[in-house]
Amino acid sequence: MPVPILKQGTYLIASVQSALTDADTERLRDDLMKQVSKYRAHGIIVDVTAIDVLDSFAARSLRTIAHMTQLRGAETVIVGLQPEVAFAMVQLGLTFDDMHTALDLEEGLAWLENKSSGRRHRDGRDSGR
Amino acid sequence: MPVPILKQGTYLIASVQSALTDADTERLRDDLMKQVSKYRAHGIIVDVTAIDVLDSFAARSLRTIAHMTQLRGAETVIVGLQPEVAFAMVQLGLTFDDMHTALDLEEGLAWLENKSSGRRHRDGRDSGR
Repeated sequence: MPVPILKQGTYLIASVQSALTDADTERLRDDLMKQVSKYRAHGIIVDVTAIDVLDSFAARSLRTIAHMTQLRGAETVIVGLQPEVAFAMVQLGLTFDDMHTALDLEEGLAWLENKSSGRRHRDGRDSGR
Repeated sequence: MPVPILKQGTYLIASVQSALTDADTERLRDDLMKQVSKYRAHGIIVDVTAIDVLDSFAARSLRTIAHMTQLRGAETVIVGLQPEVAFAMVQLGLTFDDMHTALDLEEGLAWLENKSSGRRHRDGRDSGR
């Protein structure tokens, strides 16, 4: 089942509804990359609240998505990792050290807001001198 | 004996009172995960001042707790490792390389404060132009 992607302001929200098959994951990656360009998104939230199983391929793919989108100028936050999923990931040695995670959609959006207001400020200061 | 968990601001303080059995450790992990969601905590302090024995299972579990809570958006600091415990851990090759530790509760709170005020400060400065 393809993952629906919503656009909110300059952010994209991918709301994963069920366990990701390998094909779903690849499609999510391609869809996100296309939409980042199309909507000039500055942030992406992948909401995994609804899933209770995350295999190593899916976890690795999420990291790939995060790194790819970062290279295109958009930050990715993974939100809503369930305790069981977090536990399984730690046991398997799959950590998201180099990625940002947040408790839920609200915290994720707050983090992106902070981040982008920081960027706007820096840009403003740099171009204004 | 279950570990009491106190809430102070946006932080949770788990104050370990006696040597942790395996069941206690698992319960601590589950309790912390629940409370992180419930109180939207941004930081967790596990105070082990009172214990003079920390077996490898408990040490591994503390690390698991730290990684799990990080995946849910909260930083964990272990405070009050006694010299004997630290010595035994080093001898056993159990290090907390990828975790933050501090001397005592006060230092742990200060570290969490810095971490979050750093975030707030950046945000404040950025939005205040």
